[in-house]
Amino acid sequence: MTHFNEATSVRPRPGGTEFDVDLDARWSVGTKLHGGYLLAVLGRAAASARHPHPHTVSASFLEPPDPGPAVVETETLRVGRGTTQSRARLVQGGQIRVEALIAQSLLEDTEEPVWSAADQIALPPEDACFPLPVQAPGAGFSVPLMGVIDQRIDPGVLGFVTGAPSRRGVVASWQRLADGTDWDPLSTLVALDMVPPVSYELGLAGWTPTIQLTAYLRRLPAPGPLRVRVHATEVGASRMDQTAFAWDTKDRLVAQSTQLTALRT
Amino acid sequence: MTHFNEATSVRPRPGGTEFDVDLDARWSVGTKLHGGYLLAVLGRAAASARHPHPHTVSASFLEPPDPGPAVVETETLRVGRGTTQSRARLVQGGQIRVEALIAQSLLEDTEEPVWSAADQIALPPEDACFPLPVQAPGAGFSVPLMGVIDQRIDPGVLGFVTGAPSRRGVVASWQRLADGTDWDPLSTLVALDMVPPVSYELGLAGWTPTIQLTAYLRRLPAPGPLRVRVHATEVGASRMDQTAFAWDTKDRLVAQSTQLTALRT
Repeated sequence: MTHFNEATSVRPRPGGTEFDVDLDARWSVGTKLHGGYLLAVLGRAAASARHPHPHTVSASFLEPPDPGPAVVETETLRVGRGTTQSRARLVQGGQIRVEALIAQSLLEDTEEPVWSAADQIALPPEDACFPLPVQAPGAGFSVPLMGVIDQRIDPGVLGFVTGAPSRRGVVASWQRLADGTDWDPLSTLVALDMVPPVSYELGLAGWTPTIQLTAYLRRLPAPGPLRVRVHATEVGASRMDQTAFAWDTKDRLVAQSTQLTALRT
Repeated sequence: MTHFNEATSVRPRPGGTEFDVDLDARWSVGTKLHGGYLLAVLGRAAASARHPHPHTVSASFLEPPDPGPAVVETETLRVGRGTTQSRARLVQGGQIRVEALIAQSLLEDTEEPVWSAADQIALPPEDACFPLPVQAPGAGFSVPLMGVIDQRIDPGVLGFVTGAPSRRGVVASWQRLADGTDWDPLSTLVALDMVPPVSYELGLAGWTPTIQLTAYLRRLPAPGPLRVRVHATEVGASRMDQTAFAWDTKDRLVAQSTQLTALRT
């Protein structure tokens, strides 16, 4: 069992709509479980043999759960020929923590786009990018997630480390699963919800808890690392949007997401 | 009562979590009710006195409802100091038609952005743009929505009318409510889900039913028309994404959305 599959495994209760899960503290930023990881747990519970891959996941983040036991409650909303639509809810200590709407289908890796305006991502080679550590000097908190994801950040958007953020509103990185397995649609949800948030490169240090995140998975990723670029459109006094795109080693857009976060500076 | 408020009115049943609604055929494209209109109905049901404005709405579109009576079932997921989070479900004939997750708060129109990369929208003056009719010659179907929305399309993205689409993957327009009232966060959901879809300007005529739509409302719109620009990132064999931004008369970004649609050409 790989780290990721183990960390997102779900055990059905009798009836098949509720699942026991153990939220794994390794998939955390500071003391908070990572949003993309939580979506992957919900997606795992909502998957079916016929429609195994999430192709849209949208979620409200209500209350951060703690590592440890939790329950996923699922409801099938509609089963179509090509798509199953579900609702999934993460409950812990009697409180709803995350609620998601999920559409699943069978994703292909052979489909060619009919039309595309997706910019190719411009990143220095992987070994010229900067590996993010679990313990970043001066960060004031650890990022356990960087022990299970090998992430190398574009040095052009690392100004925040030395107190000179680019203020371009972009962060970009190479990402691999540290257990050596290739990305799949569920783990790609983790890659899309990139750490650090764009706000760091805007000179706005501080916590940016996700309020809402929507991801579209466009095709199966090819083996090898993903390249992810995240940009913000506008940062208000209390909220920021972030849009992410992920490309695979065949230079294809495999996934995109948008999220709204609070901004606690 | 204005057209829009009347068309989206909801009548609470005893208990206060279920609402009777009458889906209004004027808010349709062909014979299908408009997705943004349906979200406004759900948002109206989920609104509260303390947190009256939707600031995030994300929804799965399961089965198109018909004009006429339907029921909205709501569930409050979390009530916070600044935000109420809810789930709302549109049911008709015993079938779930649309399911939405909604976060509400009190939006301001005074907040200035801390940082913005939102491109200003470049549109010819409103009277130099092309009003979309209910009955477009050669369209093969009518668009009743254009009787309740005054929409003027940028003539630079009207090539599809004469069989010469720009293939740039952008559509943009001026929009007003035909009843003369100003936009509010609920009606802005209609403006964001723009008709025609971007696919027309890509030479891909055909139906593009929404699978998923997520909207973020960033501030209260100023009085007067909205300008909306929609672009696609990638069109696959069966699905297309569309991202929309709406600006008010004070040149401020008031809302943004992303949607995934099926593509039936």
